[in-house]
Amino acid sequence: MSYAIGVDSGGTHITATAYKNHFPIASTTNGPGNILIDPNQTTKNLIEAIGNLVKKYSSDSCSCILIGIAGLESAKNPAPYLDEIKNHFRSITTNITFISDAKLALINGLEGKDGFLAIAGTGSIVYGKQGNKYLRAGGWGYLLDDVGSGYRITQEAVSTALEKMDRGKQSSLTPTILEYFREDSLKNVVSRYYTLSRPEIAAFSLKIAHVAEQGNKEAINILIHQATLLANEIIYLIKRYPQNNISLNLALSGSVLINNPIIQKEIISTLKKSYPSINIMISSRSNTAAVNYI
Amino acid sequence: MSYAIGVDSGGTHITATAYKNHFPIASTTNGPGNILIDPNQTTKNLIEAIGNLVKKYSSDSCSCILIGIAGLESAKNPAPYLDEIKNHFRSITTNITFISDAKLALINGLEGKDGFLAIAGTGSIVYGKQGNKYLRAGGWGYLLDDVGSGYRITQEAVSTALEKMDRGKQSSLTPTILEYFREDSLKNVVSRYYTLSRPEIAAFSLKIAHVAEQGNKEAINILIHQATLLANEIIYLIKRYPQNNISLNLALSGSVLINNPIIQKEIISTLKKSYPSINIMISSRSNTAAVNYI
Repeated sequence: MSYAIGVDSGGTHITATAYKNHFPIASTTNGPGNILIDPNQTTKNLIEAIGNLVKKYSSDSCSCILIGIAGLESAKNPAPYLDEIKNHFRSITTNITFISDAKLALINGLEGKDGFLAIAGTGSIVYGKQGNKYLRAGGWGYLLDDVGSGYRITQEAVSTALEKMDRGKQSSLTPTILEYFREDSLKNVVSRYYTLSRPEIAAFSLKIAHVAEQGNKEAINILIHQATLLANEIIYLIKRYPQNNISLNLALSGSVLINNPIIQKEIISTLKKSYPSINIMISSRSNTAAVNYI
Repeated sequence: MSYAIGVDSGGTHITATAYKNHFPIASTTNGPGNILIDPNQTTKNLIEAIGNLVKKYSSDSCSCILIGIAGLESAKNPAPYLDEIKNHFRSITTNITFISDAKLALINGLEGKDGFLAIAGTGSIVYGKQGNKYLRAGGWGYLLDDVGSGYRITQEAVSTALEKMDRGKQSSLTPTILEYFREDSLKNVVSRYYTLSRPEIAAFSLKIAHVAEQGNKEAINILIHQATLLANEIIYLIKRYPQNNISLNLALSGSVLINNPIIQKEIISTLKKSYPSINIMISSRSNTAAVNYI
């Protein structure tokens, strides 16, 4: 019986998963896989990850390999590296396709259909696909954009609390902030904030979501504000396509959109106002599953 | 004839200036002077800077030394270091006063009077002094605050241009941005942005001010927006003091407030609406001149 392999080659790690009849049957992971940052290491890591996976299925035939690689669209001349991978697995299958990791996420989130994908985790980005026309919005990083992301939710919470303090008032979020950052004053939280990594800062957004669900109004307002910014980013990306015959599917992905019900609900209701027929799905499955939809 | 010495001991350098009858007669500079970051080196650098200055005036008497030191209010036990400096110059004068660099700026900007000081350069901060009651607002750094600063002006310009691009439009600031950052696309400007230092990013605000003065509406809106945020920060700080018998002096300092007429004008007009009698002055003189007002 034949199997297919989906590979998600990202900045921090590579995941290669084998699927039979759309069911994942085995997975391997490996070191970093951004072809723009380190093409040699990425090639080596990809060959190793896929190699370890195919070893297990010597008697079965591999129908195809789909590889989504971070940095592929920005890399100057990736062809020799891709050829090396193709040559390495020539005896297993010649049906090997390389796409960007973004397109991999898009195919997976939308199950191969046309539509849109919004990802919000530590950062955020929006993609669109209608036929062969791919567009993106946002994703300009924590200093310039990333609306609706975990990082921006924390940033808005901490800066709002500081602004209130500067005005001689106390934010209802201050106790939660002090507790999370293990400091006794907002001034010390600021010093700490500048020493933390972005994922560490973004992780506090879970706590904000928690107090929001318990009814904290400031927390709710911050989540709704960030959700509205991201919803508008999606709406403006939809508007950039010809509106007749547009496929209105939207997949929501990334930890913030999968786990935060207030943000999820706000984005869905804002989008339904502009596009009542939009079909919204939550995508929490590994992007390697994209191989099942090509 | 006697002279007085003012010292501004900051994170990047120390300036010590001798004054006779309020006129600067000589100045020395030296290495970094933040007592929180490196108390030993700061002590050494201060003794050296002041020592080099007093050498020249052996026949004159030194009436006093006023030293404003960065990090003084956050340092845990600065007393031994300050004592060392006092002991070193005991034969020259026993009238040596240590204050924070912020208070030094406040005394200088307000020429010893009570009032408020707003500083906006790469970052921004607001101070208030009414009698012995000192308050501050803002100054929480580029990730959380610094409204009205050069850094925030650039950030708003670049993120606004990106947002327009995401919406399929072009910002009138895009050509100016591409030229300044020497890139051929906004996408490449983003990559560059994340490699630059904050002063390098902030420096672009001069260019934004330039095109604003030539009539670019987007640039004007950004400057007015940032000026309004800073003006509100000042107003809320003023409101934190008892309003009867308040001294309504405001000094504007730092490169953005000294050199950017649109920001200056907007802050002044916003403040005059709330406080018509407020007395606003521009402070571009070295903070070492504070010694003339104590």
